[in-house]
Amino acid sequence: MKSFIEYSSSSDFPIENLPYGVFTSHKNEQKHIGVAIGDWILDLNIISHLFSGPLLKDKQHVFKEQTLNSFMGLTKDHWTEARVTLQQLLDVSNPILQNDAALRQRAFVKQTESRMHVPADIGDYTDFYSSIHHATNVGIMFRSKENALMPNWKHLPVGYHGRCSSIVISGTPITRPQGQTLPVEGAEPHFGPCRLMDFELEMACFVGGPPTALGERVTAKQANDHIFGFVLMNDWSARDIQKWEYVPLGPFTSKNLGTTISPWIVTVEALRPFLIDNFPQEPQPFPYLKHDDKFNFDIKLEVDLISDKSPVVSTICRSNYRFLYWTVKQQLAQQTVTGCNLRPGDLLGSGTISGDTSDSYGSMLELSWKGTKPLRLKNGEERKFLQDGDTVVLRGYCVDESGLRIGFGKCEGKLSPAVPME
Amino acid sequence: MKSFIEYSSSSDFPIENLPYGVFTSHKNEQKHIGVAIGDWILDLNIISHLFSGPLLKDKQHVFKEQTLNSFMGLTKDHWTEARVTLQQLLDVSNPILQNDAALRQRAFVKQTESRMHVPADIGDYTDFYSSIHHATNVGIMFRSKENALMPNWKHLPVGYHGRCSSIVISGTPITRPQGQTLPVEGAEPHFGPCRLMDFELEMACFVGGPPTALGERVTAKQANDHIFGFVLMNDWSARDIQKWEYVPLGPFTSKNLGTTISPWIVTVEALRPFLIDNFPQEPQPFPYLKHDDKFNFDIKLEVDLISDKSPVVSTICRSNYRFLYWTVKQQLAQQTVTGCNLRPGDLLGSGTISGDTSDSYGSMLELSWKGTKPLRLKNGEERKFLQDGDTVVLRGYCVDESGLRIGFGKCEGKLSPAVPME
Repeated sequence: MKSFIEYSSSSDFPIENLPYGVFTSHKNEQKHIGVAIGDWILDLNIISHLFSGPLLKDKQHVFKEQTLNSFMGLTKDHWTEARVTLQQLLDVSNPILQNDAALRQRAFVKQTESRMHVPADIGDYTDFYSSIHHATNVGIMFRSKENALMPNWKHLPVGYHGRCSSIVISGTPITRPQGQTLPVEGAEPHFGPCRLMDFELEMACFVGGPPTALGERVTAKQANDHIFGFVLMNDWSARDIQKWEYVPLGPFTSKNLGTTISPWIVTVEALRPFLIDNFPQEPQPFPYLKHDDKFNFDIKLEVDLISDKSPVVSTICRSNYRFLYWTVKQQLAQQTVTGCNLRPGDLLGSGTISGDTSDSYGSMLELSWKGTKPLRLKNGEERKFLQDGDTVVLRGYCVDESGLRIGFGKCEGKLSPAVPME
Repeated sequence: MKSFIEYSSSSDFPIENLPYGVFTSHKNEQKHIGVAIGDWILDLNIISHLFSGPLLKDKQHVFKEQTLNSFMGLTKDHWTEARVTLQQLLDVSNPILQNDAALRQRAFVKQTESRMHVPADIGDYTDFYSSIHHATNVGIMFRSKENALMPNWKHLPVGYHGRCSSIVISGTPITRPQGQTLPVEGAEPHFGPCRLMDFELEMACFVGGPPTALGERVTAKQANDHIFGFVLMNDWSARDIQKWEYVPLGPFTSKNLGTTISPWIVTVEALRPFLIDNFPQEPQPFPYLKHDDKFNFDIKLEVDLISDKSPVVSTICRSNYRFLYWTVKQQLAQQTVTGCNLRPGDLLGSGTISGDTSDSYGSMLELSWKGTKPLRLKNGEERKFLQDGDTVVLRGYCVDESGLRIGFGKCEGKLSPAVPME
């Protein structure tokens, strides 16, 4: 496959990817839906009339909207038709866009001349806890090696409801929070700026398909129709605030200070060449959590830390999506097992994705092992947790032997100092 | 104050109340905003042109919308002007509506000829855990009398994020969920219908005011501008599923099977005559949680249980909103302390409101003391937890010596049997 749009072989966005996003451009402040190709965005609002296939010809309005919810709310067959249409329109052999200079001028926007936005109205956001290495590490640190994993962990994908309002797009500054902590066990709590500020390397799945009804279950075998695509996610975490607040109802204000996602939703279709075996599961899960097909992906994940003090980039973590014990199909089955209804645009976070080696851990908590093993950055500085002015950049991409690269772009955020109380 | 609309002195909806809701009528399938008065709904869509005060004359469109979010997103001053306008229009001395037969015909709909809907797009829903008697009871049952309250409980309003998609309006059937439980400690988990199905007597607050920015705190002293009004809420709970899933990230599928709210939002202004002293707090909370004004309310709360086997109503709980240890201002301050942004239409649940006597407990878990003390219903049946076909009705109202009654109507739901797995 070759496009008339030129891009380098190291681009995250070749014609085989075509991730969806929502953008505004320097020229137009109204949000439009677009797909990324090379360094460009193809504006689907402008070319909505070209979706003339049997399924989409009466649904072109979904490309005129300001979020992806309506498009997500169609079916997998609609998404496939959209992808095929886009690949045809962008193909080097196709004249429709290529040779229509006026349309081409209007339909393509440079990524550098645009601003990305949260691509959907996220009605509900759930965060799971599905990396066995992460759950084990945290368990060892806070309990013991013998009781590292909770008894329920291998029986169901543990997860909890998160905050939607504070989900922000890559590039949004994050403020170090203030809150209550318990500096000394048994003593009085303290109020002040978080001292153990952390990132969490995650990926998140946007739910698609028509809404389901309250009381309806979606089993892992049925989940396929509801998985639209994936983004990178940084689940910023105030560890000291979390520790004091989270018993018995779970993390709350330690997480809702901001959750950053990458702007481009990479579809399941684009990731299909990178399907790999699921993580082996023992004991066998209950039937509602079982599916026979592969739904694990070889997605390389990296975390860069850049200090305010120098522009030197330190890659502090190299992990992989494949380390997840529970697949997103299983997560979705768990989400709905008691009858919870889904809506297109719902977001399911994977949980921190840690690998099995100490340089693949997906949080400062694990990388510095609770602050006991400071990390040395490339510029000579040390880190136990994040410092004010630190920029954290998550990156994700797949590559195969042929050189095909499907990338996610960046999920970036810079930590600002705490705001004093009045 | 006297309205030209007639109603009995026992009506929940006198001219002093005027709660807001969203309805469709037999004649019109489009959602309209209305206020309840006696047995009637005044359709604000039809009379939006009568909001001619200085603040609302340019905002009349908010009354034409299908949810209350835009009206909630104005300021407290706008809400006050709307209330004054409505009380004037409904007053017995005012001819505008009263004597315009054609307008009156269009603007009033019988409640019995209408259907109520969730009144706002709820962007985020948080459930707190703010009744000291409830938290103590649960603590005694699951830990011990000495360690009943967690160390953090008196320092901050413990809460967690809930699911928005499964919030439904009074009258919606709730299905007994299936899920994983651990029948015997240390044994293998079991999959099947929930055996410990429960209700939770709660109230919930709709957040109003313009959206706040990420990173911005709203202290308890500033919270007033963000509290729009209150509804009754039944936080249906699958206790056995909850027990197995909730460590360490909190309740998840045991709660997202359905949460029922009453349709009429009673405003703070309407509740003002029933302000009472806040619950005494010791230790003193941190400054961000402090406010000097009263923000506790004398709202009588009752729970009726009606078995499928006979129409006899058993009132199984008589509690009161005043038993909440933390005020909703404090809950809102906690929600935002780390910088979480608010949006109008957010919902804050109080947590189960249990009183200090065994007939005032707000859940079957407490009323039957974990199933050890079965409740005898009026028709002779016994209950430890809910049975299929049980209808649970929450009611709430304030009354004073003069006979003024401000009511919330009903929050009702019937439990359907579990749906077998395919």
